[in-house]
Amino acid sequence: MRRKEFQVDQEEELVSFLNGMSFGFLGTSDEQGLPRVTPLNFVYTGGCFYFHGSHAGGKMKAIRNKQKVCFTVADEYALIPSYFSDPEMACPATAYFKSVTAYGTAEPVEDINEKAIVLSLFMKKLQPEGGYIPIDAEDPKYRPRLKGVAVVRITPDEVTAKFKFGQNLKEEGRSGVISGLSERNHPRDEETIEMMKKYCPYHSE
Amino acid sequence: MRRKEFQVDQEEELVSFLNGMSFGFLGTSDEQGLPRVTPLNFVYTGGCFYFHGSHAGGKMKAIRNKQKVCFTVADEYALIPSYFSDPEMACPATAYFKSVTAYGTAEPVEDINEKAIVLSLFMKKLQPEGGYIPIDAEDPKYRPRLKGVAVVRITPDEVTAKFKFGQNLKEEGRSGVISGLSERNHPRDEETIEMMKKYCPYHSE
Repeated sequence: MRRKEFQVDQEEELVSFLNGMSFGFLGTSDEQGLPRVTPLNFVYTGGCFYFHGSHAGGKMKAIRNKQKVCFTVADEYALIPSYFSDPEMACPATAYFKSVTAYGTAEPVEDINEKAIVLSLFMKKLQPEGGYIPIDAEDPKYRPRLKGVAVVRITPDEVTAKFKFGQNLKEEGRSGVISGLSERNHPRDEETIEMMKKYCPYHSE
Repeated sequence: MRRKEFQVDQEEELVSFLNGMSFGFLGTSDEQGLPRVTPLNFVYTGGCFYFHGSHAGGKMKAIRNKQKVCFTVADEYALIPSYFSDPEMACPATAYFKSVTAYGTAEPVEDINEKAIVLSLFMKKLQPEGGYIPIDAEDPKYRPRLKGVAVVRITPDEVTAKFKFGQNLKEEGRSGVISGLSERNHPRDEETIEMMKKYCPYHSE
């Protein structure tokens, strides 16, 4: 269930989250409407998601069959134990996370120059330190490789984001979770507290 | 494309991977066959996946509409830069990961005692340190809460696993990646080298 207070509308935060995540999950449907979920490295640029793969692979087949796809990226920040806010009941146990889901149309990128640009963005994102000859469609070493790889663009019709950091907690539960995280001090707990403060509907900074 | 050498058949390794992962991605289709991918905490037990949520949520609606679902869990161990195995071309850049995908049938768990058992397994997995009154369908404090939560069981028709750790590399590329990881020494690089050794078709231990 998507509650209104979890929505994140700022494009900037969405971009920053997506740029920091190396992979997401592509949802496709086959001819019988059966869903398939595939993990994929991706780039998000100009409002579109891109991934690459083999021309012969199952993903390409699925997309040729049905262009409407879903792409979801999620990052779990912290598991929140029930006892942070309730000494008895297990019910408040939950997870805090960011997720972005796009519904849209997947199409192969056919133009070899556009492929080179997209794959250059992949490299810039996932190998920012460089260490390779720039990808160029005119380069005779890259040209056949660019023809051989499938690149797909997902143009979203709708993008939704859910950043869940205890926005629905009452003051007491909220301070219990913050002090619990602060004492536990797992690697991402401090970052999680920052997110709780940032996204709290009553405490926005 | 699923290459044969990436397949992992051992149920034990699959269980160990799934028990170590807190969340996965549910793929459902709506009445028009449009896919939807939702991140979810899960437990895997007795060959089935379980998740929980709100009776009123979109996931439950999707499952009532179409019971055939897909559930994928993936963990990226390392981004492998191209220069580990090629000083010039960007093409060998890749990611090493484990992923498990199940195709199956999703059904709500209606029996309140079974719900209590499944949610107890959730707590055991995600809050192993305890700190709550055991979940019991006879407990008047838990009973209404158990009725109020939706628990879903996915019974797989097929489970596939892909553990990708450079199994397709030739000896030279392989030693380049191993020495590259060893020098880079990111938090999971040592673990990644172990996986490369474990799953190498020519070097199994």
